[in-house]
Amino acid sequence: MRAVVIAAHGGVENLEVREVARPAAEGDRVRVRVMAAALNRADLLQRRGLYPAPAGAVRDVPGLEFAGEVEQLGGEARAWRAGQRVFGITAGGAQAEYVVVPESALAGVPDNLSWAEAAAVPEAFITAHDALFTQGGLTVGERVGVHAAGSGVGLAALQLARAAGAQTFGTARTAAKLERARGFGLDEGVVVGEEPRVFADAVRERTGGAGVNLIVDLVGASYLAANLDALAPLGRLIFVGTMAGSKAELDLRVVMRKRLRLRGTVLRARSTEEKARAVRLFAEQVVPLLARGVVRPTVDSVFDLAGARAAHSRMEANENFGKIVLKV
Amino acid sequence: MRAVVIAAHGGVENLEVREVARPAAEGDRVRVRVMAAALNRADLLQRRGLYPAPAGAVRDVPGLEFAGEVEQLGGEARAWRAGQRVFGITAGGAQAEYVVVPESALAGVPDNLSWAEAAAVPEAFITAHDALFTQGGLTVGERVGVHAAGSGVGLAALQLARAAGAQTFGTARTAAKLERARGFGLDEGVVVGEEPRVFADAVRERTGGAGVNLIVDLVGASYLAANLDALAPLGRLIFVGTMAGSKAELDLRVVMRKRLRLRGTVLRARSTEEKARAVRLFAEQVVPLLARGVVRPTVDSVFDLAGARAAHSRMEANENFGKIVLKV
Repeated sequence: MRAVVIAAHGGVENLEVREVARPAAEGDRVRVRVMAAALNRADLLQRRGLYPAPAGAVRDVPGLEFAGEVEQLGGEARAWRAGQRVFGITAGGAQAEYVVVPESALAGVPDNLSWAEAAAVPEAFITAHDALFTQGGLTVGERVGVHAAGSGVGLAALQLARAAGAQTFGTARTAAKLERARGFGLDEGVVVGEEPRVFADAVRERTGGAGVNLIVDLVGASYLAANLDALAPLGRLIFVGTMAGSKAELDLRVVMRKRLRLRGTVLRARSTEEKARAVRLFAEQVVPLLARGVVRPTVDSVFDLAGARAAHSRMEANENFGKIVLKV
Repeated sequence: MRAVVIAAHGGVENLEVREVARPAAEGDRVRVRVMAAALNRADLLQRRGLYPAPAGAVRDVPGLEFAGEVEQLGGEARAWRAGQRVFGITAGGAQAEYVVVPESALAGVPDNLSWAEAAAVPEAFITAHDALFTQGGLTVGERVGVHAAGSGVGLAALQLARAAGAQTFGTARTAAKLERARGFGLDEGVVVGEEPRVFADAVRERTGGAGVNLIVDLVGASYLAANLDALAPLGRLIFVGTMAGSKAELDLRVVMRKRLRLRGTVLRARSTEEKARAVRLFAEQVVPLLARGVVRPTVDSVFDLAGARAAHSRMEANENFGKIVLKV
């Protein structure tokens, strides 16, 4: 089968489309004929040698999410039949014609989504749902901050938070991205340039000093102080990404006084059981919203496998609004 | 009535015993004739002007915990009768002959505790119970780290963690304090001098690299990196104190990779309802252990009210092992 392969670590020129052995599904695993697979920042890090695939995962073929048709079932797989439209997550190997995953890593694709749209869903919506609800305990009527509001996870988080009855505060580096995010559930936008504390100032001003109850942070270190400042007492800060650095000064006195809760999360390193739980909650709570059109994926652009280098370059330049998808 | 009064902010010479107006109990409040009241680090901070009493609390009389007899009941107080032995917490004013608190801030004192012992219980055991269980979610079989193992909260946390079936790891600055802490449930002691990372090294070595599941941290900034290093995946770090500074570098990548949970907590600033909940859980879950002698308070020394200056000096010099109590 054909697959995107990381031939060596470094720039986009190390990405190649090659013939590799087609994996077989055994036990409770399922082989999916991939129709589309989306790109993630983790793929860029993996290409540069900074984020190796975990033990047991396909090592040199990137791709953490996909949509396609069930094609072959292991002897103990029970949940699916050949031909069903599914999407799901994996620790690697999805940017290929076939991918093999545990059946618990799959959910059924609603009829209203195209393959490219379906491929743009899993990582962003599972991550956002997990961060907002499983990790963050979001409840109706709360105020939620989402950084990198124009990213795939950011747009998913804004929509899910709005669907759950929260008021949303979002940041981006340009007014244009914020303007587009308004169509995806953003109530209050803040353009954050080099000075993250404008976020805290804006939150305080627009909440009468009360602050936000929950922040989903994809940016990291440079926003930490502003995040603590913007949170209400008992507020929760969920670290989902570190696009702007990973080391920052933490003021424990603020954490104690406001009794804040900080939590780091990452999907990829979880055990199969934990991923299965996140996917099950996604299937139960998010897929119905997708089917009803309450929330929707955002496809920035579509490339074929041979366009993987251009796709990486586009994400690296931070030009995308929503997900970049590879069609297989 | 007589009370310890902070006449001005600064050294111990600003503490005086004065006659002040006796407060009256109204509504759901109860006046307690104080028999003993213990000292806390917050009292030292308050004396130095660094930790003012919250709104609504007695402002210039320190004292966050006490034991005594119910003496007068407000018209809506239902839970107590005059003469009952009670202990409890308050946001200030306990180092006096009488203190008025909401009836929900009180629990009944078991017969086996003297007044000095009873006064040494509330802050330490409510804080430790809240940190370990309500905030930290401790479950049987886990491994728990407790810093400042020789402090009042530290000794309470060690005993409660052991009573709940956890293995305990404790740090102190001297081997003598650790040796004494062994009598209070300490399984694995680590002397931490100027280099907190010996804690992480010892935990890794003694757990076969697995780490601890929960850390109750009374020390703060200087231990942050070692704490992250010592925690197992999904580990919880509860900030209860900042004796050694409040600002430290946080590595978000570690927090994300291990999916750690960091949480700040402080009792004093909580609402009456939240304190009532903590006291109720203490009465239900800790008082029976005290009555059975499974856990016990640690009285370092007893002073009378006029000895408040000497009591503060002893705590400031870090000479105490367990609680310093003022007898009224």
